[in-house]
Amino acid sequence: MALYVHKYGGTSMGSVERIKNVARRVAKWHTAGHQVIVVPSAMSGETNRLLGLAREICDQPSPRELDMLASTGEQASVALLAIALQDLGIDARSYTGWQVPVRTDNAYTKARIESIEDTRVRQDLNAGKVVIITGFQGIDADNNITTLGRGGSDTSAVAVASAFGAAECLIYTDVDGVYTTDPRVVPEARRLNVVSFEEMLEMASLGSKVLQIRAVEFAGRYRLPVRVLSSLTDPLGPLPDEMRAGTLITFEEDEKMETPTVSGIAFSRDEAKLTLLAVPDKPGIASTILGPIADANIDVDVIVQNQSVAGTTDFSFTVQRTEFQRAFEVLQNEVAPAIGAKEVISDDKVCKVSIVGIGMRSHVGIAATMFRTLADEGINIQMISTSEIKTSVIIQDKYMELAVRALHKAFGLDQPQPVAE
Amino acid sequence: MALYVHKYGGTSMGSVERIKNVARRVAKWHTAGHQVIVVPSAMSGETNRLLGLAREICDQPSPRELDMLASTGEQASVALLAIALQDLGIDARSYTGWQVPVRTDNAYTKARIESIEDTRVRQDLNAGKVVIITGFQGIDADNNITTLGRGGSDTSAVAVASAFGAAECLIYTDVDGVYTTDPRVVPEARRLNVVSFEEMLEMASLGSKVLQIRAVEFAGRYRLPVRVLSSLTDPLGPLPDEMRAGTLITFEEDEKMETPTVSGIAFSRDEAKLTLLAVPDKPGIASTILGPIADANIDVDVIVQNQSVAGTTDFSFTVQRTEFQRAFEVLQNEVAPAIGAKEVISDDKVCKVSIVGIGMRSHVGIAATMFRTLADEGINIQMISTSEIKTSVIIQDKYMELAVRALHKAFGLDQPQPVAE
Repeated sequence: MALYVHKYGGTSMGSVERIKNVARRVAKWHTAGHQVIVVPSAMSGETNRLLGLAREICDQPSPRELDMLASTGEQASVALLAIALQDLGIDARSYTGWQVPVRTDNAYTKARIESIEDTRVRQDLNAGKVVIITGFQGIDADNNITTLGRGGSDTSAVAVASAFGAAECLIYTDVDGVYTTDPRVVPEARRLNVVSFEEMLEMASLGSKVLQIRAVEFAGRYRLPVRVLSSLTDPLGPLPDEMRAGTLITFEEDEKMETPTVSGIAFSRDEAKLTLLAVPDKPGIASTILGPIADANIDVDVIVQNQSVAGTTDFSFTVQRTEFQRAFEVLQNEVAPAIGAKEVISDDKVCKVSIVGIGMRSHVGIAATMFRTLADEGINIQMISTSEIKTSVIIQDKYMELAVRALHKAFGLDQPQPVAE
Repeated sequence: MALYVHKYGGTSMGSVERIKNVARRVAKWHTAGHQVIVVPSAMSGETNRLLGLAREICDQPSPRELDMLASTGEQASVALLAIALQDLGIDARSYTGWQVPVRTDNAYTKARIESIEDTRVRQDLNAGKVVIITGFQGIDADNNITTLGRGGSDTSAVAVASAFGAAECLIYTDVDGVYTTDPRVVPEARRLNVVSFEEMLEMASLGSKVLQIRAVEFAGRYRLPVRVLSSLTDPLGPLPDEMRAGTLITFEEDEKMETPTVSGIAFSRDEAKLTLLAVPDKPGIASTILGPIADANIDVDVIVQNQSVAGTTDFSFTVQRTEFQRAFEVLQNEVAPAIGAKEVISDDKVCKVSIVGIGMRSHVGIAATMFRTLADEGINIQMISTSEIKTSVIIQDKYMELAVRALHKAFGLDQPQPVAE
């Protein structure tokens, strides 16, 4: 008997029938003797509908008022879920962010949680109630409503779970866990039973859109176990199975976790590459180049600078393809003349493929296997970037599926993983 | 230059284009130098949509959760209106009931306002901002969200206006004021420029659905002038005209107000009449009869008890026609046997027609004119009930339109009213 936090996404809350299913599932945990706090998202489509109204009125709506508006979606959700639980005879009570309260900074539309008060909710839990708390929102020091930004309900759930010392935070979503790679690209992709926090961070930032990256960071900071699992299974299915379902994101690096050296293949399709040729190699050059790019609000992904030859170096980085044109113009018109670079060359038909695995730390030769596998398929590597648990390559985008499939096989990811616990 | 509270109904807030029109109108007042607090309703249909979802989930949803749910409609409205005002270059800021805060008792779905804190809003007004406050809602002593019940935004607006000492509370709606009677029944019905608070109370409770009766009561308690006017006029029309438009509900009983002895003809179509014959006339008999009716949650309207003859009396009352069957069963099965009444007779084909006018107090013969007018039309009066400013009759429902038209003419209501101010 322990405390669990359940988080349900917008799709899981998308209709009256689905809300009833969420209630049945929560009731099952509660009836088994567990304490449950639920953090549901707004019904799918609702946040977009509300923000769409605002944008019809004004191109640049005030962020404070956008938060006032958008936070209503989650408020409606918690009330509906409380009603559905009460209909099953479960004593349930909903709270908004300000009622708990969940305190945040005042960065409207992208606020960060600062503290969560637990007195009132704890009383309800101890009285046997299921407590439902709005995701995605809080209040600042002046009692203005703030939101955490898109996907913020994941972060809310993890923050609530850590504030209340939950045994686990369960993220119920429309996929049944974290996969070795995207099954649409590699049909043999397998669900991981366990993945480390660091691997998950790399997977999330590389495009495995299962869990918001801020939520993973939050979980990491508080060493909170997070489980990603499907909300589409039978809500009345056996609880012991459900407690082992999906993918557990963990901080325990046991032997089993060391066995597979590569846990997954991540990829990002829509990249573009920019290179400044013959840049004078002197201190501060990287920030001189990337400063104007950041000022133009363009996110940079991979950055590679080679050893300089004859006092100059080539400096490359990638951006999202949609921001390629703007980035190119900044380089061409501002940066290159200012630093005396010889030329700007670019390619907007590239992609990024990465192998991720905590085992890489202690296993040599992983990167070599990756490069040989790609060479065997005749795929040329344009850029390489590495971290302790990830190696990424930039390649021509038409080879992406081929590369992912070849790497998935080369690292044995289509073979069964040892079952955790 | 003064402080005005504007209230806009759901229809006035019913679309992006209409919200923009509300913003244009508010901006006009603000630009003319007035301080403005706006209390908008939820977009039309929104509250029904939300409550409909709750009822799909559960037949008897918890009132606390219903309030949590329904209050989101107004919260979205205030944010959208703030955005629309900002788009016109007006500094505007929205607040929910709990942010002000508007304190209420804890009677969920029908809460009563206890206090309104003015510090924060006053600061904004003094800084030149337009302030927008959610109607219909507040918080109880435990910070639970409460709502005031259907039409509660009128009450919120009047309460806010009195808390801030507003010069006037303007209720913008889809009719342009209070009429001498329903124009659908009497095409010659005229808009009243001025109506007294007491008359408005009688008109509202008798079915002139222009303004929620609780709002009128609130205005009366604080002697706050309330103006009912149309939100469908050109929002950029001349302000001096708009400041005299619609119908002013006032507490100043000046000579002009005394002139017309009858201000309006109210009516209620769907009534049913119940009579207990030969009831033993002893103290407490009325509550013995009506107690079980109240216990069955049936609202009683007109009550008439005649002089007793030979120790027994006849006791009659009316109820809404939809509650007739239940009321009849309570009388027949519970009350009549208990008190030894001879018989229950009933008629569910009656209606109520009333003349309302503050001038009645000092003018004799008004009721006589009413009865003679009905007699001239061959209409039999079944019950009569009077108050200081109202005389009501119960008649057969097929005569309702005829009675209303005849009375409207008999009291000269189709003649122009002297213009106020």
